[in-house]
Amino acid sequence: MYNKITNKDIEYLKTIVPSEDFLCGDEISADYGKDELGTVTHMPDVMMYVTKAEEVSKILKYANEHLIPVVARGSGTGLVGACVPLEGGIVVNTTKMNHILELDTNNLTLTVEPGVLLMEIYEYVEPKGFFYAPDPGEKSATIGGNISTNAGGMRAVKWGVTRDWVRAIEVVLPTGEIETFGRKVVKDSTGYSLKNLIIGSEGTLGIITKAILRLEPKPVESLSLLVPFPTADTGLDAVPAIIREKVNPTAIEFFEKNTILFAEEYLGRAFPDKNSSSYILLTFEGKNKAELEANYRIAADLCLDKLGANDVFIVDTDERKEAVWKARGAFLEAIKASTTDMDECDVVVPRSEVANYIKFTYELAEKYQIRIPSFGHAGDGNLHIYICRDELDKEIFDKKLLAIFDKMYKEAARVGGLVSGEHGIGYAKKEYMKELLGPTQIKLMKGIKDVFDPNHILNPGKISD
Amino acid sequence: MYNKITNKDIEYLKTIVPSEDFLCGDEISADYGKDELGTVTHMPDVMMYVTKAEEVSKILKYANEHLIPVVARGSGTGLVGACVPLEGGIVVNTTKMNHILELDTNNLTLTVEPGVLLMEIYEYVEPKGFFYAPDPGEKSATIGGNISTNAGGMRAVKWGVTRDWVRAIEVVLPTGEIETFGRKVVKDSTGYSLKNLIIGSEGTLGIITKAILRLEPKPVESLSLLVPFPTADTGLDAVPAIIREKVNPTAIEFFEKNTILFAEEYLGRAFPDKNSSSYILLTFEGKNKAELEANYRIAADLCLDKLGANDVFIVDTDERKEAVWKARGAFLEAIKASTTDMDECDVVVPRSEVANYIKFTYELAEKYQIRIPSFGHAGDGNLHIYICRDELDKEIFDKKLLAIFDKMYKEAARVGGLVSGEHGIGYAKKEYMKELLGPTQIKLMKGIKDVFDPNHILNPGKISD
Repeated sequence: MYNKITNKDIEYLKTIVPSEDFLCGDEISADYGKDELGTVTHMPDVMMYVTKAEEVSKILKYANEHLIPVVARGSGTGLVGACVPLEGGIVVNTTKMNHILELDTNNLTLTVEPGVLLMEIYEYVEPKGFFYAPDPGEKSATIGGNISTNAGGMRAVKWGVTRDWVRAIEVVLPTGEIETFGRKVVKDSTGYSLKNLIIGSEGTLGIITKAILRLEPKPVESLSLLVPFPTADTGLDAVPAIIREKVNPTAIEFFEKNTILFAEEYLGRAFPDKNSSSYILLTFEGKNKAELEANYRIAADLCLDKLGANDVFIVDTDERKEAVWKARGAFLEAIKASTTDMDECDVVVPRSEVANYIKFTYELAEKYQIRIPSFGHAGDGNLHIYICRDELDKEIFDKKLLAIFDKMYKEAARVGGLVSGEHGIGYAKKEYMKELLGPTQIKLMKGIKDVFDPNHILNPGKISD
Repeated sequence: MYNKITNKDIEYLKTIVPSEDFLCGDEISADYGKDELGTVTHMPDVMMYVTKAEEVSKILKYANEHLIPVVARGSGTGLVGACVPLEGGIVVNTTKMNHILELDTNNLTLTVEPGVLLMEIYEYVEPKGFFYAPDPGEKSATIGGNISTNAGGMRAVKWGVTRDWVRAIEVVLPTGEIETFGRKVVKDSTGYSLKNLIIGSEGTLGIITKAILRLEPKPVESLSLLVPFPTADTGLDAVPAIIREKVNPTAIEFFEKNTILFAEEYLGRAFPDKNSSSYILLTFEGKNKAELEANYRIAADLCLDKLGANDVFIVDTDERKEAVWKARGAFLEAIKASTTDMDECDVVVPRSEVANYIKFTYELAEKYQIRIPSFGHAGDGNLHIYICRDELDKEIFDKKLLAIFDKMYKEAARVGGLVSGEHGIGYAKKEYMKELLGPTQIKLMKGIKDVFDPNHILNPGKISD
């Protein structure tokens, strides 16, 4: 279906970007054939660093006419193979489009290029008293990637996900047009929300070349509670009880003792407490200490008096905050380092089902005699569950993995959940999405793909393609 | 293109709903041929009150096979003719699907049928300590209509719009399938966001038969500031200055003395103050009085000391709150009552452009010698501007109206705004949307319409159709 890139193609494509931004064949590092999933790999024929929407437009127009696949790539920190060029062709690398273009304090917006890193956004706006709330674990991801997967993160309980923080995007369509979807406005009822369709479409409908992000005043005060529980069950059961109490936490994270031990080993530094079986980490934010205190005290008393917590540690000093959040930030890497090989599941379930779902994974671990550590955004129902190969034979692991994934996604569907809370579908989760959403919704997605990208040149083989 | 309804069609359609829910020809009141816009009218051939998704599915399947147009209708409070059956056919009336199905306190969601009124939602959840934030002026609108136009309202400054409060929708597609888009979950990165595509699609892609809404804990304390200014300019210029101050208001409304006078006459009751030229109404909410006070005092001092306000009235008693908000709620009806005929413009512009935009409408009023009162959600850039006919000859009015609309939407585009902030496009604003968004985006919308509704039986002639 696609054409192989020829010397003639290369000759033309070379005219679009400066020579140092054009890489071909062996000049391209093997890193650009994969993402953090690692198991799906395919090298592009050409990689082009772009710095302007016009360059992207020229590339896409040419590729569309000549049926050459194009895949956009940011930092490559995805976990579902979404930026892997399965059919070869061109990788459009956006990491040099890394400029913050405008902070608009009248409209509370930040205009950025897609290659700006999440951590660069925080570093830029927070000292100025502003706040970009989405808080995915991987701070070295690009904002373009975050928008493309509708990344979530820890503060979603209170502040929502990336989708809720995008006012507008400039997008190059597969046919080369440069369009702006949305504006620097708060409300929009102007026809179908094409902006929301492109957010989360993992580079299959267009390539994002600019984004106008929403900002808010930065909460002045924040504080976390680290709450140890005697068992996993008691910790998990505490989450809905806390939500019912209306104390408005920004984040509610759940993790187990083992995960802490991995993180300690990985980071080489001690966690404040590891004597209990499970932990809940609650964060509160506010304009002043009074507002914070009102909320966190209710939560602390509830945990101690009614929910069976072993203790409540107040994480309010910079030192303690760093120790706790550094560990929390390292969980994924720490679990990765604890095993030979692993794959992950990013289901999202109703918050009320989190406890039962985690218990269900314990049963699977037992049944399949395999290690399944997990941690997750318990407050928003989004769980990160890792199936670890450890010393298992590769073939046996792959078989078990398939069986376990199948059961996990079926269970997610049964309890009213979805395949992905924040990592996306990409290549790795396509079949599970198809099964969960059913043929009608997949047909609609395929139809939409055809409308935007009639020749399917953009990121082939992903989502519904 | 469409088929006229025959006796055979009627015979079949009658079998779908109880006989009292089936109306035909002269049995249908003239009200069902229009909405609050009034100027676009067309009667349906048949109106069916539905009570189940299965009934809607049967109607759509049949209509799709027989090329009969179908239009969904709630309370009919729209302002752009979106629910007018331009091609006749069937009106599916959802007002009997008016049950609140579930309050889920673990997941903070409310499941409702589409015909539930906005005011019924507030009445149901608020005494239980919960909060549904979207706050459009028209409380007798149905939630189905609110979702279909992505209604906004006054609290959007802090809380966002309807889109941000919909976790999931059950939708009957034009081809009859009953699908659920989204789930009772907080995060979703599971493929293209079909849910967000249908929100705001004004009944052109499917008919909503159920919605799962997000709730939050209800803010315990609230208070408004009514701030009079000596001129329109000083009032308008205060808005961005307040936003920059990071005091996190829930709403910032702007209105002029004249609008207050109309409201007083319309309601037959006095407004607390009418000595000044223009007014800003600010609302603050919080968990406790301390939180409120910190914010509103900063705002009040700023208005008095630096922004030239004449005074600051604290609206904190129930009596004052009612007087002020009742008047605010009556502005549209009051302006309507002040003239023979009018049409409205619902542009949204960057918040920083509100002052200039309102000044621009003053110039238009002067130039065209016509009355153009306005009020609006100054805090979110969404303005409601009314072009009043008064004693003008109908033909002259229509001519002036066209010229003024053309200039208004061009100016909105020039300053980075959009055609509709919350009322939608429907029939009345189609051409302005086409001009502002351009052919590429309209082509994408048309393509999406074809994917969902290949025979264009659903709400023909609306949005991009």
